[in-house]
Amino acid sequence: MTRFDRKTAEGMLYTDFYQLTMAQLYFRNGIHECPVQFEHFFRNYPDYGSHQAGYCINAGLEWLLDWITQTRFQESDIRHLRSQTGRSGKRLFKDDFLDWLTKYVIFEGISMRSIPEGRVVHPGCPLNIVEGPLAIAQMLETPLLNYLNYQTLVATKSARIHEAGRGRPVIEFGMRRAQERGANAGARAALIGGADFTSNTGASCALGYSPKGTHAHSMVQAFMALGHDEIGAFRAYAEVYPDDCLLLVDTINTLESGIPNAIQVFEELKQKGHTPFGIRLDSGDLAYLSIQAAKMLNNSGFPGTVIVLSNQLDEIVIWQIISQIHAEATKYGVDPDGLINRLIFGVGTGLITSKGAPALDGVYKMTAISNNGNWMPTIKISESVKKILNPGPKQVWRMYDRRGRATADVISTRDELLQNVPSLTLHHPTEEGISRTMSREEISTLEPLLIEVLKEGVPVQAPPSIEDIRQCRIADMDRLDTGVKRLISPHRYHVSLSEKLWNLKQEMVAMMKKE
Amino acid sequence: MTRFDRKTAEGMLYTDFYQLTMAQLYFRNGIHECPVQFEHFFRNYPDYGSHQAGYCINAGLEWLLDWITQTRFQESDIRHLRSQTGRSGKRLFKDDFLDWLTKYVIFEGISMRSIPEGRVVHPGCPLNIVEGPLAIAQMLETPLLNYLNYQTLVATKSARIHEAGRGRPVIEFGMRRAQERGANAGARAALIGGADFTSNTGASCALGYSPKGTHAHSMVQAFMALGHDEIGAFRAYAEVYPDDCLLLVDTINTLESGIPNAIQVFEELKQKGHTPFGIRLDSGDLAYLSIQAAKMLNNSGFPGTVIVLSNQLDEIVIWQIISQIHAEATKYGVDPDGLINRLIFGVGTGLITSKGAPALDGVYKMTAISNNGNWMPTIKISESVKKILNPGPKQVWRMYDRRGRATADVISTRDELLQNVPSLTLHHPTEEGISRTMSREEISTLEPLLIEVLKEGVPVQAPPSIEDIRQCRIADMDRLDTGVKRLISPHRYHVSLSEKLWNLKQEMVAMMKKE
Repeated sequence: MTRFDRKTAEGMLYTDFYQLTMAQLYFRNGIHECPVQFEHFFRNYPDYGSHQAGYCINAGLEWLLDWITQTRFQESDIRHLRSQTGRSGKRLFKDDFLDWLTKYVIFEGISMRSIPEGRVVHPGCPLNIVEGPLAIAQMLETPLLNYLNYQTLVATKSARIHEAGRGRPVIEFGMRRAQERGANAGARAALIGGADFTSNTGASCALGYSPKGTHAHSMVQAFMALGHDEIGAFRAYAEVYPDDCLLLVDTINTLESGIPNAIQVFEELKQKGHTPFGIRLDSGDLAYLSIQAAKMLNNSGFPGTVIVLSNQLDEIVIWQIISQIHAEATKYGVDPDGLINRLIFGVGTGLITSKGAPALDGVYKMTAISNNGNWMPTIKISESVKKILNPGPKQVWRMYDRRGRATADVISTRDELLQNVPSLTLHHPTEEGISRTMSREEISTLEPLLIEVLKEGVPVQAPPSIEDIRQCRIADMDRLDTGVKRLISPHRYHVSLSEKLWNLKQEMVAMMKKE
Repeated sequence: MTRFDRKTAEGMLYTDFYQLTMAQLYFRNGIHECPVQFEHFFRNYPDYGSHQAGYCINAGLEWLLDWITQTRFQESDIRHLRSQTGRSGKRLFKDDFLDWLTKYVIFEGISMRSIPEGRVVHPGCPLNIVEGPLAIAQMLETPLLNYLNYQTLVATKSARIHEAGRGRPVIEFGMRRAQERGANAGARAALIGGADFTSNTGASCALGYSPKGTHAHSMVQAFMALGHDEIGAFRAYAEVYPDDCLLLVDTINTLESGIPNAIQVFEELKQKGHTPFGIRLDSGDLAYLSIQAAKMLNNSGFPGTVIVLSNQLDEIVIWQIISQIHAEATKYGVDPDGLINRLIFGVGTGLITSKGAPALDGVYKMTAISNNGNWMPTIKISESVKKILNPGPKQVWRMYDRRGRATADVISTRDELLQNVPSLTLHHPTEEGISRTMSREEISTLEPLLIEVLKEGVPVQAPPSIEDIRQCRIADMDRLDTGVKRLISPHRYHVSLSEKLWNLKQEMVAMMKKE
């Protein structure tokens, strides 16, 4: 058994097998280079069971573009395909098709228009429109969905956690519970969505971030096994990290041992001229314990120390902890807001696995095909009205009201210039007869969201930094109504179709039904 | 912004930051090379909410060992660590520690005893025991958990799906919904646990498997957009893949269009001397539609064709589909068992994300430390009795009854030879006073499960093939009682402590409490 061959597993063959068999079918029928458009969109916000997202944060594009521009068929890939046989024992892929694959510089025919990373996005709107030769665009389906669905899912969860935590620092702690190397994509998406740091050292360094962490129970345990005690372990830590002394206080007993020992060590640090950093609580009733910890730290002259909370956190648990602090801190003589403003949240499993909704339902559907240079809209009808595709090339517009708040996303045909119309009729995306008309005066801005990011296989511009992407997310979140950002049962953001797109869709559905 | 640096993100820095700060702390205190033992185990079977696992399938070890033996500190890793600063702006890592990191051939001091991949495993039992220098063994915590938790989680889900599907072929389809590159680990784990194939082309090729798939709706859609119809698309497919003709029949209307068109194309194939393969159903009531499909195919002379089912499958949905077929097929003149024996299950999101339980709660805890060459057991007590560690070096034994069925796993101290005792007292792992004594005659075999896999950084033997691992899983599953394999509320498998280990644990707890 040879070592697992990552070059094979992560290159051009990083796709579902049927994409390759379909590609050969298109080749055989002479339509493999026919220009088409595929759209990537998700149908539903993540539903976490007891709570639901009212928006998503778009993420993953840079890594997808990176894969697209760096990947092409290797000799070994072709060898693998050549060796695939069907039920009859005969080869599945013929040489002429394999020759075409290798001769073609694989993604050079692909162009993409995309909504940038960090932007708030909504169901049904194309996040990415891929244009290129049918066989190549088809093969891109699986890697595109693989790269984008997960990062958007985690960036969304991260934004919710950030909102629940009222802007207090969030550290992504989930590497040990991630889907293996997905940990790195998850760390990046968490940073985009709202986490301020990650404990994932490699991803942090590769992204230009400072990795963060505290220490584990095993440190205290190791010192105890060697004949020391908890305070001995704390002193050793303070000695090595006098200006970053953040102590985990629940190895033995939080209130009776951990915090008193931490305070003792903080005193010693203070006498040496250092400023202690804080403590971490990793078990028990984190709201109650943080109130007690704050009280003890305050009474000992350490009101400036931070309190890191970890252990099974997610947006709902954080929200509850903050509510409980608000309700109970005062009766212990602790100012609730003062306490909340010293909290830091370490979030592991709940963030990296998007607890409650482990997958985003993003799909990739053909919406147009070129016939002698003209884009012909394509449609897929379905017994479920919600699954009928919006046909043809498109643009997505964000409509802002006079307060500057985003009020709706409008999907139009590509050639419409919505900025210039005197009034705008917005159709419900699936329900007949539900529409509203807005005068142009009610709208402060109409912003097109899809921009060109890849032209014939070449990125149009250098990717933005994570920091720029974060700023983009912050700006979009500020322009969302509070009701849409609600953690549970959020207000439904409007996604509408332009009149022209609605009419095109109805015509095509009618035509399909007639056939 | 430079391209994401995978060398940095997937090498030695593929760990939580606190592992590195703790390593420096140990170095500073002169205990970094002190030999220790860490244990990896999980506390609970995956709980999917409405159903629960009664066993897990161990997976991931080969890739972990591969990472351990291939990874060491690079110059660039050290540069990244050198640039990390604390709150005071001073460097966090000093040169002497960084020198030690680079000089040390990093994992050469690490040995491991492990339960092999593919074996059935249970909570609380050490799956892996890592032995080596404190600082190095500590740094291994995060990558070990990252590599093993996820594959064991997915192999377990895969085994459940395989069981629910009564041994009918299962194809892993989840790449588009995986956590990015975690897709490859997920595909491997799915194969170990029970899936027979995966649609993930790269992972299949790298593992020596044949990737599998059918075709997508987009193929039919593409032909229709170019002026053809569904049957035209089917004919094109049959032309290229005459011996592997598996047609997706729900693009337009399953019963009125897809299946009749497929049958027509199958007729044409048959006349040319080919054997049609089958159809795929991807929407609607899969039980009802598969009965109708079987009836139509049978009546047309194609009783041998397969019926692939996909769309939101998991073990419970598959179980329901099979139950519904058993209840209803006869009244449509279809033999239920005949139908079930032609089914193939394509399982995507539900398998790769382990739907309902997206993470395994595996942990890594110090259990022994060497003091002048003697292993001293270590313990971590907790307010929760269930979280008190089992101290010291260990072995795990599987006890088989006279029928050859596995009846309990027994955790012992390392030096006990349970095979030789006339009777065996088994203690409940946490509850005082619950024990039972078995005479040696009641036990047919006592099998030690932990075997040496890594000795001073070098693998003890070549890793088994996936096929060998699958055989191991099949053998272990055969020796499990049916009740333990039940999908919902399974019978609880016994994990017990030997009398010697139980007594050691009680002594240490008493000693800790006295202190």
